[in-house]
Amino acid sequence: MAAAPGTAAQGLRDDGWYTELSSLWPGQGLSLKVDEVLYQGRSEFQDIAVFKTGAFGKVLVLDGAIQCTERDEFSYQEMIAHLPLCALARPAKKVLVVGGGDGGVLRELSRHSSLEAIHMAEIDGGVVEAAKIHFPGMAIGFSDPRVSLHICDGIKFVQDAEENTYDAIIVDSSDPVGPAEVLFQQPFFEAMHRALKPGGVVCTQGESLWYHLDIIKGLAAMCHTVFVGGTVQYAFTTIPTYPSGQIGFMICSKADPETQAQLDPRTPKRSVDGADSAALGPLKYYSPEVHSAAFVLPAFAKRELQASLSF
Amino acid sequence: MAAAPGTAAQGLRDDGWYTELSSLWPGQGLSLKVDEVLYQGRSEFQDIAVFKTGAFGKVLVLDGAIQCTERDEFSYQEMIAHLPLCALARPAKKVLVVGGGDGGVLRELSRHSSLEAIHMAEIDGGVVEAAKIHFPGMAIGFSDPRVSLHICDGIKFVQDAEENTYDAIIVDSSDPVGPAEVLFQQPFFEAMHRALKPGGVVCTQGESLWYHLDIIKGLAAMCHTVFVGGTVQYAFTTIPTYPSGQIGFMICSKADPETQAQLDPRTPKRSVDGADSAALGPLKYYSPEVHSAAFVLPAFAKRELQASLSF
Repeated sequence: MAAAPGTAAQGLRDDGWYTELSSLWPGQGLSLKVDEVLYQGRSEFQDIAVFKTGAFGKVLVLDGAIQCTERDEFSYQEMIAHLPLCALARPAKKVLVVGGGDGGVLRELSRHSSLEAIHMAEIDGGVVEAAKIHFPGMAIGFSDPRVSLHICDGIKFVQDAEENTYDAIIVDSSDPVGPAEVLFQQPFFEAMHRALKPGGVVCTQGESLWYHLDIIKGLAAMCHTVFVGGTVQYAFTTIPTYPSGQIGFMICSKADPETQAQLDPRTPKRSVDGADSAALGPLKYYSPEVHSAAFVLPAFAKRELQASLSF
Repeated sequence: MAAAPGTAAQGLRDDGWYTELSSLWPGQGLSLKVDEVLYQGRSEFQDIAVFKTGAFGKVLVLDGAIQCTERDEFSYQEMIAHLPLCALARPAKKVLVVGGGDGGVLRELSRHSSLEAIHMAEIDGGVVEAAKIHFPGMAIGFSDPRVSLHICDGIKFVQDAEENTYDAIIVDSSDPVGPAEVLFQQPFFEAMHRALKPGGVVCTQGESLWYHLDIIKGLAAMCHTVFVGGTVQYAFTTIPTYPSGQIGFMICSKADPETQAQLDPRTPKRSVDGADSAALGPLKYYSPEVHSAAFVLPAFAKRELQASLSF
């Protein structure tokens, strides 16, 4: 990508309105009335800002791009966590999250009682700090005793992992501009494939079908060459504060030589046993029906991607 | 609604950016860089503007709200037309479109060879004129010889229609603020119910699950009382330039005393026989799989609506 990361300040106007500008969606952007800038700073890796808005509650902005808002974050967090875990043939015991420093994905993983270990490799401790202060509803995920947080380079963490370690790897990254760019490239996917157990699943943030079909097409083709004998699929969820109002996920499974069975991630094999957790409340977006429907792509997208997808 | 209709000029800034502001989605709005204002005027009924943008091509704005853009209109037009027509137990012969003055719904209806008559009741001839000048890709719908255009009050047109006339009525309206407000109210739905054939289907523009769940809940409850013995369902499609990136449809069927069968609109009963029309090109959004998936609602929405929905 030739695009350069932005800052939150670039999109803030004197009248208190913020427009999310990016070279990834030129000539347009969501505008929000900001009631208060709760935090604005720079970590070692990126520009971090927290806005208070009337429309979406608190909003986390990294390098000028909206990462999550209190009002609609559940859609993304539930789907990126439960799609892979419910697709697995066997209940997941060990899961790795790359990125996800806001804690929201951890919160959703904590609904799964089968999990024994949840590793997180987040490059930027500044994001974790900001979440713990401003987004307790997401950062609650860090309080699960099964979680071990590693502030480090996610790629190196995956490369150093033992082979056949994880049932699922979830990549909750920002856009492929700035620190997350490498998380969309082949060496990282090869390392994840190696670290997955046979039959294991990777689920990565996969941009928008409406705006980034070319990126997704390239990503799917690359996954197709890495997950030989496994499966490659794409799903999406609706979420108002991401560009185009939706975001997708690349979901790839590693071949299992023992069973020879190809995992079809479109059909959930298990439910979220903590779906009605007393501490977390009921699921707001995910259901088994939503799981399957998420893989049904608009005709224009299916035509472009079907050569790389498994079904 | 206490909301008052706006104008396109209110959202246009000196730097050429337009933000879609409305009391229906306070504190936020999609912003577009406008390269040129192609038209700005006032009809008898509303403020009409046409913008040229880099991101979405030409954009039609009524009373300050984006109605359609060249880049993504196909999602809405295909779904609001093909969902009801493909759900019908018998092929549709006679269809009424209320609103839809841009012609896009007519274009999609023209793919159905079973249709013998397509009536349109559009209140504002100014919209039809603007579409014919600036949106030939949608206004092509008017060239179908089965179309008869009536510039008139849609409610009166439906009230004057003979009982049991239409296989489907499609309400392609703007938001329930300004001239379209009455199209969301019970007298109009009662008139549509009367004008439908037994087993016929109504499909109306039904706002966004993310922003207008209260409006939708009220609409569904009202439909439930009008379509006695029939069915009430809700579907949605993704579309970047509508608020929240999606828009929904209320789909109601009239009881058929002869067959006693309840129509389940979630399962398509027929395909679009002109799906690959040489003149119009292939469908870009709709497919039988997309049809069924469109009725699968996020958990939060299903919980709120299920008391009024039929399944």
